Amino acid sequence: MTVTDHTAPPASDDLARFDAALRRADLVAAQLRATAAERDRANKPPLAEIELLREADLLQVGEPVEYGGSGLDYSQSQQLTRRVARGDTSIAHLLGYHYAQQRIPHLFGTADQADELSRRNAQFKPFWGGVQNPRGASGLTLTRDGSGFRLDGRRTFASGAGVADQLSVTAELDGDLVFLSIPARREGFTPLNDWDNIGQRLTDSGGVVFDGVRIERSEILGEDPLTGRVPSAYQTLVTPHWQLAFVNFYIGTAEGALEEALDWTRLHASPWETSGLESATDDPYILELVGALRSEVTAAALLADHAGEALQSALDIGPDLTPDQRAEAAIAIAEAKYVTTKVSLDVASRLFEIQGARATTTSYGFDRHWRNLRTHTVHDPVAYKAREVGDWTLNRRAPQFTLYS
Amino acid sequence: MTVTDHTAPPASDDLARFDAALRRADLVAAQLRATAAERDRANKPPLAEIELLREADLLQVGEPVEYGGSGLDYSQSQQLTRRVARGDTSIAHLLGYHYAQQRIPHLFGTADQADELSRRNAQFKPFWGGVQNPRGASGLTLTRDGSGFRLDGRRTFASGAGVADQLSVTAELDGDLVFLSIPARREGFTPLNDWDNIGQRLTDSGGVVFDGVRIERSEILGEDPLTGRVPSAYQTLVTPHWQLAFVNFYIGTAEGALEEALDWTRLHASPWETSGLESATDDPYILELVGALRSEVTAAALLADHAGEALQSALDIGPDLTPDQRAEAAIAIAEAKYVTTKVSLDVASRLFEIQGARATTTSYGFDRHWRNLRTHTVHDPVAYKAREVGDWTLNRRAPQFTLYS
Amino acid sequence: MTVTDHTAPPASDDLARFDAALRRADLVAAQLRATAAERDRANKPPLAEIELLREADLLQVGEPVEYGGSGLDYSQSQQLTRRVARGDTSIAHLLGYHYAQQRIPHLFGTADQADELSRRNAQFKPFWGGVQNPRGASGLTLTRDGSGFRLDGRRTFASGAGVADQLSVTAELDGDLVFLSIPARREGFTPLNDWDNIGQRLTDSGGVVFDGVRIERSEILGEDPLTGRVPSAYQTLVTPHWQLAFVNFYIGTAEGALEEALDWTRLHASPWETSGLESATDDPYILELVGALRSEVTAAALLADHAGEALQSALDIGPDLTPDQRAEAAIAIAEAKYVTTKVSLDVASRLFEIQGARATTTSYGFDRHWRNLRTHTVHDPVAYKAREVGDWTLNRRAPQFTLYS
Amino acid sequence: MTVTDHTAPPASDDLARFDAALRRADLVAAQLRATAAERDRANKPPLAEIELLREADLLQVGEPVEYGGSGLDYSQSQQLTRRVARGDTSIAHLLGYHYAQQRIPHLFGTADQADELSRRNAQFKPFWGGVQNPRGASGLTLTRDGSGFRLDGRRTFASGAGVADQLSVTAELDGDLVFLSIPARREGFTPLNDWDNIGQRLTDSGGVVFDGVRIERSEILGEDPLTGRVPSAYQTLVTPHWQLAFVNFYIGTAEGALEEALDWTRLHASPWETSGLESATDDPYILELVGALRSEVTAAALLADHAGEALQSALDIGPDLTPDQRAEAAIAIAEAKYVTTKVSLDVASRLFEIQGARATTTSYGFDRHWRNLRTHTVHDPVAYKAREVGDWTLNRRAPQFTLYS
Repeated sequence: MTVTDHTAPPASDDLARFDAALRRADLVAAQLRATAAERDRANKPPLAEIELLREADLLQVGEPVEYGGSGLDYSQSQQLTRRVARGDTSIAHLLGYHYAQQRIPHLFGTADQADELSRRNAQFKPFWGGVQNPRGASGLTLTRDGSGFRLDGRRTFASGAGVADQLSVTAELDGDLVFLSIPARREGFTPLNDWDNIGQRLTDSGGVVFDGVRIERSEILGEDPLTGRVPSAYQTLVTPHWQLAFVNFYIGTAEGALEEALDWTRLHASPWETSGLESATDDPYILELVGALRSEVTAAALLADHAGEALQSALDIGPDLTPDQRAEAAIAIAEAKYVTTKVSLDVASRLFEIQGARATTTSYGFDRHWRNLRTHTVHDPVAYKAREVGDWTLNRRAPQFTLYS
Repeated sequence: MTVTDHTAPPASDDLARFDAALRRADLVAAQLRATAAERDRANKPPLAEIELLREADLLQVGEPVEYGGSGLDYSQSQQLTRRVARGDTSIAHLLGYHYAQQRIPHLFGTADQADELSRRNAQFKPFWGGVQNPRGASGLTLTRDGSGFRLDGRRTFASGAGVADQLSVTAELDGDLVFLSIPARREGFTPLNDWDNIGQRLTDSGGVVFDGVRIERSEILGEDPLTGRVPSAYQTLVTPHWQLAFVNFYIGTAEGALEEALDWTRLHASPWETSGLESATDDPYILELVGALRSEVTAAALLADHAGEALQSALDIGPDLTPDQRAEAAIAIAEAKYVTTKVSLDVASRLFEIQGARATTTSYGFDRHWRNLRTHTVHDPVAYKAREVGDWTLNRRAPQFTLYS
Repeated sequence: MTVTDHTAPPASDDLARFDAALRRADLVAAQLRATAAERDRANKPPLAEIELLREADLLQVGEPVEYGGSGLDYSQSQQLTRRVARGDTSIAHLLGYHYAQQRIPHLFGTADQADELSRRNAQFKPFWGGVQNPRGASGLTLTRDGSGFRLDGRRTFASGAGVADQLSVTAELDGDLVFLSIPARREGFTPLNDWDNIGQRLTDSGGVVFDGVRIERSEILGEDPLTGRVPSAYQTLVTPHWQLAFVNFYIGTAEGALEEALDWTRLHASPWETSGLESATDDPYILELVGALRSEVTAAALLADHAGEALQSALDIGPDLTPDQRAEAAIAIAEAKYVTTKVSLDVASRLFEIQGARATTTSYGFDRHWRNLRTHTVHDPVAYKAREVGDWTLNRRAPQFTLYS
Repeated sequence: MTVTDHTAPPASDDLARFDAALRRADLVAAQLRATAAERDRANKPPLAEIELLREADLLQVGEPVEYGGSGLDYSQSQQLTRRVARGDTSIAHLLGYHYAQQRIPHLFGTADQADELSRRNAQFKPFWGGVQNPRGASGLTLTRDGSGFRLDGRRTFASGAGVADQLSVTAELDGDLVFLSIPARREGFTPLNDWDNIGQRLTDSGGVVFDGVRIERSEILGEDPLTGRVPSAYQTLVTPHWQLAFVNFYIGTAEGALEEALDWTRLHASPWETSGLESATDDPYILELVGALRSEVTAAALLADHAGEALQSALDIGPDLTPDQRAEAAIAIAEAKYVTTKVSLDVASRLFEIQGARATTTSYGFDRHWRNLRTHTVHDPVAYKAREVGDWTLNRRAPQFTLYS
């Protein structure tokens, strides 16, 4: 199977750069796939993998060309996430989050803050980790401390924070949320390295502790006063940024897993004893299943593209974005979240019905797809995503802004 | 719900014409929907409906602007089918087939034949019916008869033939298939008016008899010799033409049915007794279901668009089309057939779970959607469509050309 | 297909009587099936059908042998409903409700009232209709009037009331619910004959009006005082009685529809053109689908049996039934409601994929199965039934008593 | 949740013994569950687990009471498999196969052979492993060698053979299949200990090699001549024996996994942030999902019971069993195989939607259920099981005897 490429690049400099980035992502995916099962078992911090992303110039694609980036827009960058997911869902997760974190200064920061961070992203290619996931007993608190601030608290599930160069942090200041961008190696910050889950094992998504970490004013995004403001509709696009990453690494995983399963099937599968066939690749039920899954995957991938376009359109409007326009983008992503979740889990589980019993050998690691998807797709309950779509469709009630929707 | 419009027209004359045609189709759909349930029960020949299509200038949209058409390409014309299906699946079926029949002279005819028929389509706006469905005890036979030919035989399931101005006919001549284009009102041709099925009731899809119908050489498409040739890959695109029509009226039906059900729900639905809610539109299960169905419909509609683009790309290549290029187009449509079949049937059946028990009142006619879809989706078994996709994906074996795939 | 008979009767008088009743029901089902499509279209009051049930001695099976009944327990009687549903879902609906109505005096009446009605049921074989469905703008009110009472109000959806000999009525007296049992032909009672729905067309489920209908004290079930009492757990089994009827006519419909479809397939189905097969009955996808549907139907039928046993066990305990025991019975039925709803709708819709396009001819009437099931399965939302099962399973919270659960 | 017990034992000695065995199995299941996740990771030979089964007197339950067994019939013994599967699917797999192997002498052996092995089973409680799985490059060959025979060859997937006391072996002799029963510790027999699969990790299902293993005539089951006979319908019940084991450990796994997930949910789950609820156990979507899964599991478990009864009825007929009776039993099991496969996989995957993201922590090991089921359910393709059911239902064509059906 040639995975359908929904992003045919026309002939222009911009698109040539996008095309080149897609190719680099494909190469990285191929390299990652070759060792994905083994690395999944080894469960080590993904340092070499991040280095691979950096060397392939995938970390700074969203920055301006004149600074050294590829000038891709946000939806284009998440197409790279999808490509990388075809080889390794964990690393695509890290990359997708990284792209989202890099955009936060553009939503919440001053023009100078955003510009300065863009320059540094392009020049030094730092990997961005995040400390946002709001679930957990306690949160992060920022308190004024002399000329600056100090940050205290702990979070569970801080994807990539332990291996990051730069951290994007959401914390509470005087009861409001503020966004910080700080270097990762700073006194008082300790990743707990306690991520040991059934999937997304290479995402370094364990807990972190901030114990009196010094924060400068300039590292807190935005103008003074820092608090007392309701985020604008445009700023609340922050959550769809992450959700678009999810959508892309879900469907990219399904694409890659199906491709991998078909390759294996062509080489190794045996015809079923009572089928009377000479080759498994002639089996009517296998052919039907392959066709059904591929059709579902193509539809879901198109919906993910559509979601990316919707978010990008909203971003392109900029700070004047209306709440309804924000809702349209969020709903397009929620639709894609619903469908890609369902389809990708189904693909990951049913692959074995194409391949047959021998494909359950541990060394192939084909179960990692289901484990990866199952782990991340419960990040937030998909029933609530469907509900948001329904509420908008039936009642024109927009999803509330939370760090999940 | 505003049905998502995936066909945003840029600013150019061509697209302005497309946009205008879409609006005309939307108006026709609105008119048809208002009376669809009633007309479904009455089960009369769809003469007034065809007149409505003609008056809305929808019959000649695919002909050149200079002849009086709208210059739409084939995939654009099937977008009109989708729009009309939001109001009436039967009439969309007639329109979708009509567009397909009109293209047959361009595939099988000489340049002159095709051009002449285009002119006449634009000038007189004839409605084209078809006599192709190959299933049935006997077929149609063309035999040489003096300076011309005579056509004999009968067919079941000849959609729109009884109400047509022009007939597109597939017949056997010396053991090969040939395509004819003839005026419908000709001696010896008798529609049986025997279509009485549970769905697509207004498609006039009954049987027809040809009893010594006189056919001129010029009405048989193509150069001499008429037989002894294998159709080219380009010519075998004939079947994907029909299949693309199906895909569009399936998903258009789902879009329209969902919209109609939501309108009704907002006006008439009652909250469930044990829900403790004041309005059905707040019910968590209804919201989830609406969101799930809408998400699936959006994905399927995008896949139908994708299929249309694939066929159009193949058509744009023209007679040099390779077998593999033909296969890519056919497979894209097969994928869409698989997904739109599944999604549209699901929508049509589950609408009642949104609306509740009162929506089963006959006068609303909400069951017609399921009946329409159920009737047409068994036209050819969708399992074989999935199999074709699987065989191409796994084995690179292209679907064989038949009048079904 | 021989529909699996899960009710093998051992050799004893009781079971011989049950066995004989099953055979009578099978005969009735066969007679009804032969004309079901035609009667569905004609949409007349089911008078002849009720006469058929009476002549087959199916109306009094639940009454004691010594009075002239067959001494069947309630779960056995609902097995007859299932059998009849194999031939006609509407008539099975009427019969299933009839059995439920006949039990109400045994739940709410005095011993004398129950006994007297049993004698009359056995002797005169009246058909019982019901006026209970609580949905609708206004309810029924009983008011004291001299030595007796008068009944006023209207109800929508009163199954079988228009063709009944005896009415089981739920009305409000001083703010409490009371149950009445009265002869149907009484001054002031008017059936509206306004049932015209897409399914269950022969159930005479239209609205009724009571306008000053005279009611005697003896026709109100129970001891004095008539109000001010909370129904016991045992009495609240009234709702599971109806729900068990539903479960049985859903799955009976699926059994009959599948049998009918397979008979048709053996006689009429054509192999698919591209299948290369000589008979549709060899098609791998048809065989798989038949096997899948039959397996699901068998499982659902066993669950319906299990639900019947659970309700019967609760009934056999009698008035000492505890709330938890009541909950166990209600939950067993809710489980069966959930599964039979899903499976039977799926069967009714997918039959056409077994049979192929010709089975959509109106005269066969194969769509009536889906219409019947779709109409009744939205009687109460199945999502809430699943929720009840979940709440009991997870939290040991029993479903509240309502006239729906 | 109290897992529904479909096997209520009446008061008799036989049933008291069955009841006692069920309790012992429940205790074993509880012990196994406590360490299942940890043992799954450790992946050691299941020696201690088999010892646990032996100490709980579960290995000889099928032997006559007078010899020291519990006198359970075969379907009862597979109820024990189901119970054990609630705690550990791998060990239930070993136990289910063990029971099947123990019955082979009763199908293929002489009365003396069967009786002698029964006595030894009851007295010494050997664990039986099997070497049957016919898939693989080469098979096992028995050749005459002096007064006895020698056995050579290798097999992949020989469940439990490496830890067995007694081996049940299927080999080829002069082109026919013969069945052997031999002590496991014999010169020339080498288990390869090469089972390392994603699921059923503790089943010791690796390959084995026989290199000139000495076999006595008495160890080959049956009368002389050993070959040249077609197995009787009764003997071909051997395959349904295994299939019934599968069905029971699939559904037992689902029952146990659901119970475990609900226990965890009550203790650890958090309400969803945007739900506005104080407890996850009040979430409408979680309650619906729990109810849906429990309903499906109950239905599937009843179908598994039904399959067990069907096989037992066939066994009770004995050697006079007709091919049609054999088919009825095989089809009942195939139905259960189809449904339990679908339901148990669904449960194992969707549990996480009940529990939420924290349940993906590796130490809980909740993914083992999906891995176990996914691994074994591709043992033979379930589409072919559905096909067998369909072929019998539609065409009365019985499934062919193979070691898979």
